[in-house]
Parts: sequence; C-alpha cells; structure tokens
Amino acid sequence: MGHSLVPSDRVEGTPVHGHSGEKLGTIERLMLDKMSGTVAYAVVKSGGVFDTRYRYPLPWHTLRYNAARQCYDADLTLEELRSGPCELDDTFDWGDRSLAQARPHYWGV
Amino acid sequence: MGHSLVPSDRVEGTPVHGHSGEKLGTIERLMLDKMSGTVAYAVVKSGGVFDTRYRYPLPWHTLRYNAARQCYDADLTLEELRSGPCELDDTFDWGDRSLAQARPHYWGV
Repeated sequence: MGHSLVPSDRVEGTPVHGHSGEKLGTIERLMLDKMSGTVAYAVVKSGGVFDTRYRYPLPWHTLRYNAARQCYDADLTLEELRSGPCELDDTFDWGDRSLAQARPHYWGV
Repeated sequence: MGHSLVPSDRVEGTPVHGHSGEKLGTIERLMLDKMSGTVAYAVVKSGGVFDTRYRYPLPWHTLRYNAARQCYDADLTLEELRSGPCELDDTFDWGDRSLAQARPHYWGV
C-alpha cells in the first residue's frame, strides 16, 4: 500500500477498465525494452465473438491503477480500443517494433 | 530474434548465471516503478539448504541476456549474491523501497 513499486506478476492478469468503467480486457503480459528495462506497452487480451481472443497493445502511461476496483483504468472506450491495432494469433511476435512504428498515433511512441 | 523488446512472462522463470557461469538462481518476478514503468530490480530465487528458497534483488542493469544459453548473465559470484540483501519469507513485500535505501551500494540506486 502506497509503495512505488509493483510486481510484474501482479500486473499480469489484472483487468483493464475503460472510460465509462466498462471492462476492456485483461493484461496478459508486459513488453519490456531489453536495454532500458522500461515497459513499452501492455498486451491487453479482450474477449471477442465465438470465444476468440483479441490482443491489443496499450502504452504503460495510458494505464492508471485503480486501487478501489483493483484494476487499471484507461481513458478510452471499447470502440476506441477495437479501432486500434490488434492481433488474433496467440503466437504473434509482439517484440516486433515495426508494428509500433506503423501506428505511432496509437502506440504513443 | 534481434528485437528490442521482451515479454515480462518470458523473463519470469529465466535462469541467472554468475561470473563463472554457475547458476545463481531463477528470476521469479520483476519489480516495476508504477509511475515510469521501469524495472527497479529482478527478484532472483535461489535454492538453499533444506529446500528453503532465498530471494535476492538484482538491478535490471546488472543482467545481460545470453541468447546462446537462454539465461541472464550477472557479473557477480554466488558468494557476492549471498552477501547481499536477501529474504526467506515468500510473503515479503518487495515493493518496500526503504529496503533499497538501506543498501544503496548493492541495489544500484
């Protein structure tokens, strides 16, 4: 409580709620810059139709921890999330930075 | 391969080898600064006597990924690791930064 640090495995699995409090998904993992050790973005897993799972990248700075609800709040709607980059394939290589470069407005880089 | 990013859940569970190639332990989790999203240190779990598990904090910048051995290399010996701060209790609150302040020479802060 009140600490400045959080364990990586406590972040993984934490829900993400949107602008109006609706659940956007769950943080599946964090993508870290190997050199600096800084989180580039969180991979948020979201339920889709026919039980498919979409994965969306969200920059760390867009996520604010909500201690009362034990979730992260992101200031965007489900529609905005879905209009951004996403990936269906579970084996997608999130380490590929070229994706971020193709979508600079969304990834916040 | 050759990417600048690594998933947090791939770092967790990765072995850490020491100065002479000896195994120091395994990365259990990463402690992240909530605001900046930067790794403060890795918590390295190491086997002890009578199946106890010691946990040691190692700053991110001390760990270099060794692709050939699929481990992280740290430029210290098992003796140096063991002479640093450690914790036996599984429920120890690693988020408490005051520990780091008490041992600045070791934690690299």
